[in-house]
Amino acid sequence: MQKYDVIVIGGGPAGVISAVTAKKCDKVSNVLLLRAVKTSLIPCGIPYIFSTLDSVEKDIMGDKSLVNNGIEIAIDTVTDVVPDNKTVKTAGGKEYQYEKLVLATGSLPVKLPIEGIDLPGVYLIKKDMDYLKKLREHVLAAKNIVIIGGGFIGVEFSDDISKLPGKKITIVEMLPHVVNQAFDDEFAVKAEEELKKKGVDILTNSKVVRFDGSGKVEKVVLDGGREIPADVVIVSIGAKPNVELAKKAGLDISKSGGIWVDEYMRTSNRDIFAVGDCAEKRDFYTRERVPVMLASTATAEARIAGVNLFRIQVIRENKGTIAIFSTKVGNVALAAAGLTEKRALEQGYEIVTGEAEAANRHPGNLPGSMPTKVKLIFSKRSGILLGGQVAGGAEVGELINVIGLAIQQGIPGCELFTLQVGTHPMLTAAPTIYPFIVAAQNAMAKVK
Amino acid sequence: MQKYDVIVIGGGPAGVISAVTAKKCDKVSNVLLLRAVKTSLIPCGIPYIFSTLDSVEKDIMGDKSLVNNGIEIAIDTVTDVVPDNKTVKTAGGKEYQYEKLVLATGSLPVKLPIEGIDLPGVYLIKKDMDYLKKLREHVLAAKNIVIIGGGFIGVEFSDDISKLPGKKITIVEMLPHVVNQAFDDEFAVKAEEELKKKGVDILTNSKVVRFDGSGKVEKVVLDGGREIPADVVIVSIGAKPNVELAKKAGLDISKSGGIWVDEYMRTSNRDIFAVGDCAEKRDFYTRERVPVMLASTATAEARIAGVNLFRIQVIRENKGTIAIFSTKVGNVALAAAGLTEKRALEQGYEIVTGEAEAANRHPGNLPGSMPTKVKLIFSKRSGILLGGQVAGGAEVGELINVIGLAIQQGIPGCELFTLQVGTHPMLTAAPTIYPFIVAAQNAMAKVK
Repeated sequence: MQKYDVIVIGGGPAGVISAVTAKKCDKVSNVLLLRAVKTSLIPCGIPYIFSTLDSVEKDIMGDKSLVNNGIEIAIDTVTDVVPDNKTVKTAGGKEYQYEKLVLATGSLPVKLPIEGIDLPGVYLIKKDMDYLKKLREHVLAAKNIVIIGGGFIGVEFSDDISKLPGKKITIVEMLPHVVNQAFDDEFAVKAEEELKKKGVDILTNSKVVRFDGSGKVEKVVLDGGREIPADVVIVSIGAKPNVELAKKAGLDISKSGGIWVDEYMRTSNRDIFAVGDCAEKRDFYTRERVPVMLASTATAEARIAGVNLFRIQVIRENKGTIAIFSTKVGNVALAAAGLTEKRALEQGYEIVTGEAEAANRHPGNLPGSMPTKVKLIFSKRSGILLGGQVAGGAEVGELINVIGLAIQQGIPGCELFTLQVGTHPMLTAAPTIYPFIVAAQNAMAKVK
Repeated sequence: MQKYDVIVIGGGPAGVISAVTAKKCDKVSNVLLLRAVKTSLIPCGIPYIFSTLDSVEKDIMGDKSLVNNGIEIAIDTVTDVVPDNKTVKTAGGKEYQYEKLVLATGSLPVKLPIEGIDLPGVYLIKKDMDYLKKLREHVLAAKNIVIIGGGFIGVEFSDDISKLPGKKITIVEMLPHVVNQAFDDEFAVKAEEELKKKGVDILTNSKVVRFDGSGKVEKVVLDGGREIPADVVIVSIGAKPNVELAKKAGLDISKSGGIWVDEYMRTSNRDIFAVGDCAEKRDFYTRERVPVMLASTATAEARIAGVNLFRIQVIRENKGTIAIFSTKVGNVALAAAGLTEKRALEQGYEIVTGEAEAANRHPGNLPGSMPTKVKLIFSKRSGILLGGQVAGGAEVGELINVIGLAIQQGIPGCELFTLQVGTHPMLTAAPTIYPFIVAAQNAMAKVK
């Protein structure tokens, strides 16, 4: 039986980064990465296979970083983890021994428990090349496409498919707005406006009760009886941790459904770690369990696990997830980190908000100029930054990381007065009206 | 004699933000802003008047924020500040009384002390509309343009002028590379490559000894005798604090040539503040005096002064300037914050550096994808981030603000392991290879 210092189960971002980080440790001479699929995809790139990337193949993650770091790869499905003798067994009949094991088994799409869900033409979002190729071909041939769930995945699918000619796209969303989990209404509305410009129909406050069709899906039936014609249905209502292996191995599963982990991503078995979507996440502010599944969070956890497998080298205070992410709808980039206003109020925080808007070039008549809108949410009495939302040009993808770092550092609003930022006519807003700082000032001014 | 709670001298970004911030204070009912020029320009936009903005008028700052905030504006030159009776006198024969005074008198371009500097056709970079209009017309009509000084201003002028047809541009720089004060060689070379692609000639390690011509400039003569034909010469070798008024008023002037200020931008007279280019700057790391002149630094100081004029409301620990800034050359954005490797070594820091490069989209074959290169400099033993440099797409303008905030917070490299960042296929590098984090890891790996 082959023996490895480290075995990683799962080939997504969390698996890859766990393996690469572990391999750099001086106690580690060999690492095996086991994955079920022959080819790993970049998960966040999946919405773009229809038009922008123009194929599923262009979204392949590639094994370069694994190969370059001397990590062995085996394409096989793990059927069992046996903690007692520290082995894993595979569907291919192999057995491997590990010193340390990392579970990066990811998540599985949530399947709507309604009639017609198994009709041909109804797709979930699986990170599987062949499945997505079939979905892509079906979408290319289809006219009426209905997307169930207006979270950022559903919105990104709609955005990319709408670039193809002759498609009629409808989003069905239960909440009052799309991307409403991550954004307050005024930002969610911006995303809706962009989608509407592209001809996407958005049905909010709407619930699907049934998929209908003979032999294949033909329509989506909503609560209240409305019917939407559908050649293809894409169900993107979320995902749940894939914990089957962990459960069978007797590891503790948290109430949230994720694998229980300590500060260093160790499971209830000291030699088994869990990272990414399969591991439990907690909220940055309340430590409440939250269902955040982001590749960036997953890779941060993978670095923690990878570096601390054999001894704790990098001390961590697990501050929980700030659910930081960005997206693009039409020409508008949107990003959020931390608590929205709505969620802060639900959680019982006494807050004050500040808003600011400024062109992302200065003067504003420079080419490529777009308005950038920033909203910040502060704890009223302590002045600590609780969350931020941004809409604007492509640089919003990095601007949210400035805000995210400020949140992670617990910077009070009044300290943002003295923040030094770099600005440039062709790259950012003017220093006089840099909207992150001005939004903070506007919030602090309300406290006096 | 008219009396004001606050008088601000100077209409640049530091003056405007001082006035606007002061006006929001509950102790302030009237604010006067005095400036010599009828129309204020956006200083950082000046390089773009030739081609990108296509006129000087499009670089006008505008008085909207002053007018909207109820700030009075007077176009007049202040000739004297009289601290004893708290008044200012103007060339227009007016006299105004102040409760608190803010000097935002900016800087003046350094004039090369060589023969021919006063020949027609030799220009300095003055923030003066009529002067710049004349320069612009002259450049449009010229063939041979020589730019003395390859700092970021000289580079930006070259970049913009090179977009006009039929221009022969030469940069003359004393140091081994352009932008060599702000960037280590490998980044400076990137800027040079972009300029060369656009046909700009770069003469480094070169010193000007004389401007020649009969009645107007015709050539630039270098140390060693080489002559460069010149229809227009633009001298951009730096600026010095404009402290004439402060000197006459008896305020302390620092050894650096700037107005001495305390933590809250107060001069040696408690009722007079100084902000922006005219005030002394100190280095973030050593507290050494440094000649940093950036609009973003100036506005940060203006906010400090404006909010603290009558009582200290926002506590400040003046950490000194991290000289954070960004620029764009051709299609490449470059940005820097804190110490370069070279400067850190000169200053006696024992350091370790880390580099990383990744596409700014993921997968890298998405439209708009460009490589982003990050270099970080850490204190070797304490692990504290001392500086960073970035080259890549337009989002570099905000990415440097993530790095800048990390510097200002004194974050050690190993803490960057756990940093949560947001990533998106269309907006940023992949989370697996996000270059700010990977560069930190690479640096830390060298320490073991």
